[in-house]
Amino acid sequence: EIVASVQAALGEGPLKGRHVIVTSGPTHEPIDPVRYIANRSSGTQGTAIAGALRDLGAKVTFVTGPASVPPPTGVEVVRVETARQMLSAVEAALPADIAVFAAAVADWRVDNAAGSKMKKDGTGRAPALEFAENPDILATVSKMATGRPALVIGFAAETDDVIANATAKRDRKGCDWIVANDVSPATGIMGGEENAVTLITAAGGEEWPRLPKDEVARRLAARIASVLGADV
Amino acid sequence: EIVASVQAALGEGPLKGRHVIVTSGPTHEPIDPVRYIANRSSGTQGTAIAGALRDLGAKVTFVTGPASVPPPTGVEVVRVETARQMLSAVEAALPADIAVFAAAVADWRVDNAAGSKMKKDGTGRAPALEFAENPDILATVSKMATGRPALVIGFAAETDDVIANATAKRDRKGCDWIVANDVSPATGIMGGEENAVTLITAAGGEEWPRLPKDEVARRLAARIASVLGADV
Repeated sequence: EIVASVQAALGEGPLKGRHVIVTSGPTHEPIDPVRYIANRSSGTQGTAIAGALRDLGAKVTFVTGPASVPPPTGVEVVRVETARQMLSAVEAALPADIAVFAAAVADWRVDNAAGSKMKKDGTGRAPALEFAENPDILATVSKMATGRPALVIGFAAETDDVIANATAKRDRKGCDWIVANDVSPATGIMGGEENAVTLITAAGGEEWPRLPKDEVARRLAARIASVLGADV
Repeated sequence: EIVASVQAALGEGPLKGRHVIVTSGPTHEPIDPVRYIANRSSGTQGTAIAGALRDLGAKVTFVTGPASVPPPTGVEVVRVETARQMLSAVEAALPADIAVFAAAVADWRVDNAAGSKMKKDGTGRAPALEFAENPDILATVSKMATGRPALVIGFAAETDDVIANATAKRDRKGCDWIVANDVSPATGIMGGEENAVTLITAAGGEEWPRLPKDEVARRLAARIASVLGADV
């Protein structure tokens, strides 16, 4: 890792000259000024991936929601809160050679978010929330007609039928790889330090052993470099 | 403060022998295994209050939701996630002389929370969420027929008509004091290091200057001690 960091500081490494966008963390979707809907994502895995790609010499734009871990050093950090802000930040960061969408983006936002704090009205009924579907960042970038990154990688946080759901997601979104993991509470992965992922590519699914998230990140970065790391 | 800490370490100070329950932080109400509804509360003010009461010699039970600041040292920490868990923890910590309910408790929980991750179904419509009103911890403890703490203090995070809303809240909940603050985004108070509060008592409202949250905590603790600090 020291060798890699020195390489990166010198602008060397197999991903030298490559621009990578990494998204990370949760998004927060406001309900009113004091309430919001969030995802259980600490940003640990996305942060580790951004650091591992930096260590291989890539220029990294790190688009992060409100994560509980600090962003890596040596990358360009763009902080966002909502899914729509995250899509805008990704679009502004293009073009890129590689996009890794590790953020846990909210599928829905509250369409009737209030400008003032919602109050109990004495009826015991909650104010009705109306939801709108958020933009799909992974599908949007995967299906770009021009300027699509050469390698687009999505994540699938599943609780049931992990491989089947993730394979279907890869087809539906049009991305190249899916990094699938089982976030069932029993696994202790969500918010933990380890991850057990299955890499879904055109060739099928490849189960990785349970590893520290840093090691998952290094393996994924090495795999990316093996595909795209040839000198430009 | 050093004198106070030494006093506290020696079990001295004007609140020696008093048991205080302090709640702090947000609550998280699950939607499904990966999504939840949260409040924008860092726990900074509640943590400072618990520390200030400890410094005056009180025995503090600190019931905290998933806050972004660490709990104070020298107190008993009880970690909870939801409003219902917080009420249970408060009830388990009774009896107490003083209760300070600084947590930003969710008014509602999702009544139909899912055991598996909710999926987009292709219709563009979100799954319907049904809400149930959470227990009202402040009112429940304020209105205890027997064993009510001698001093019950609530918080009011308001965005409009702060004093009028907080005064009405004091009457409705049956608590002794309300610490009211304006959490409009423009104030920068939510998540910030300063607070501008109005203390609502039976005598009316008393506006405090904008102060660091630590100083608000010390003033509130001193005020509590002036009322209840006489030797038992």
